[in-house]
Amino acid sequence: MTEPRNPDFEAHIRESFARQGMMELLRAELLEVEHGRIVIAAPIRPEVTQQNGYSHAGLAWSIGDSACGYAAQSVMDAGRDVLSVELKINMLAPGRGERLVAEGRVVRSGRTLVVIAGDVHAEEGGRRTHIATILGTMIATGG
Amino acid sequence: MTEPRNPDFEAHIRESFARQGMMELLRAELLEVEHGRIVIAAPIRPEVTQQNGYSHAGLAWSIGDSACGYAAQSVMDAGRDVLSVELKINMLAPGRGERLVAEGRVVRSGRTLVVIAGDVHAEEGGRRTHIATILGTMIATGG
Amino acid sequence: MTEPRNPDFEAHIRESFARQGMMELLRAELLEVEHGRIVIAAPIRPEVTQQNGYSHAGLAWSIGDSACGYAAQSVMDAGRDVLSVELKINMLAPGRGERLVAEGRVVRSGRTLVVIAGDVHAEEGGRRTHIATILGTMIATGG
Amino acid sequence: MTEPRNPDFEAHIRESFARQGMMELLRAELLEVEHGRIVIAAPIRPEVTQQNGYSHAGLAWSIGDSACGYAAQSVMDAGRDVLSVELKINMLAPGRGERLVAEGRVVRSGRTLVVIAGDVHAEEGGRRTHIATILGTMIATGG
Repeated sequence: MTEPRNPDFEAHIRESFARQGMMELLRAELLEVEHGRIVIAAPIRPEVTQQNGYSHAGLAWSIGDSACGYAAQSVMDAGRDVLSVELKINMLAPGRGERLVAEGRVVRSGRTLVVIAGDVHAEEGGRRTHIATILGTMIATGG
Repeated sequence: MTEPRNPDFEAHIRESFARQGMMELLRAELLEVEHGRIVIAAPIRPEVTQQNGYSHAGLAWSIGDSACGYAAQSVMDAGRDVLSVELKINMLAPGRGERLVAEGRVVRSGRTLVVIAGDVHAEEGGRRTHIATILGTMIATGG
Repeated sequence: MTEPRNPDFEAHIRESFARQGMMELLRAELLEVEHGRIVIAAPIRPEVTQQNGYSHAGLAWSIGDSACGYAAQSVMDAGRDVLSVELKINMLAPGRGERLVAEGRVVRSGRTLVVIAGDVHAEEGGRRTHIATILGTMIATGG
Repeated sequence: MTEPRNPDFEAHIRESFARQGMMELLRAELLEVEHGRIVIAAPIRPEVTQQNGYSHAGLAWSIGDSACGYAAQSVMDAGRDVLSVELKINMLAPGRGERLVAEGRVVRSGRTLVVIAGDVHAEEGGRRTHIATILGTMIATGG
């Protein structure tokens, strides 16, 4: 990874994150903002469970998608925004414990498309379990 | 599609849906329950938007995943439950309007694995826009 | 699907297909060329099997990818070419019989990206078995 | 990764690979066989190109699928075989040069399903280019 094309990417991402109703609804927080790598966490509350009490796959997906989207955002030119083209998630284990932590990373950054990968872990009493892995594509819009 | 292997699949699915905290958080409702086909809708409220005001991809994904999961559930033996193995979603258009409607369908049903497909539409003033399409795999557990 | 943006799309696709070494290696043939829909078939010879004698998943994938790529090509402007961005295939059944037939279709056509879907069937003694389903993204290049 | 459940996994994989007509057709060779990790290479000959002279995506996919399948095989019990459930590939760059090299790795190994990941590089004059990345699911059969 070379220099950021937008030196203000962190401020842009933090401001954008704050505007996402969905992240607030899920009580998600932005833990780390690096060039090409973003970490987002969200608590496993009863409100985000499936029928069996584990976290709904939609929680892992939602914070994973946002982490990957902002990872793509961090390598783009200033003034451009990002949209999900497609995302695939493989579920590896049930999500149980206190919270989920999703990391998004840039695999390859082109002018228009950014290929991203991500991983989601569940944290339970200090132990981390790898519960999902993600591979997808983001597109730069505007600019 | 032949006869349901679980004649009570509809009651089972409705009861399971009611236990999903995530569906309640998203104000999702179960619109149609057929053998091999499920429809779930959720309103586009400010709480489920992304930074630009459209519905977060996680909303389409969450109700799409549930619609596909219950479609798989509807073709399973009684006493078995369903988990998402993997799901891929392609986003086709921004989600704007009053609500999203997700349909999940069974593509092929094996003893253990069920391949599912789905589509998500946004409804705005009586017009429907195809915003996402899904292809994935569910697994039967228990039983 | 509206009017083709390139009225000569069929000639362009047939000429492009003829230049694909891979399609020749697999003895693939272009069965149908329509605006937004392409059908390609390939024989199941011993040369394209896996360790158990069924057709290798790579055969279904290769003709499926080409069918989807040309389906995307058929809706593009003249002078543009197509590349696979990503493709997901779900295998539904073993590929056995005389040949595989892959159909590629356009799901949504944007200016740059085209979302495509496809299905692969195996033909054995007049019977067709659905062996794979595809969802992916193509990108227009050049132009 | 713990101990192999099948101490003879390498012999089993080499023997299975030798029976794959598709690998022979593509002139693919098995470069590395480790517990949980397989490397397969194939030359970029005119016979495996697309219309523009680069390697066909089907070549990357075919050796990637086999590398991932055998990576899954390497962690299974003796007497079991492996089938592809689904595979997603993101193409990162055109495949040009002398050969493609695909690595398959086990992400998570369950009793029935094995989640795998892979990467394909093109080698050209001593330089390696990352041309594709893979995420998928394999299933154990028989046994």
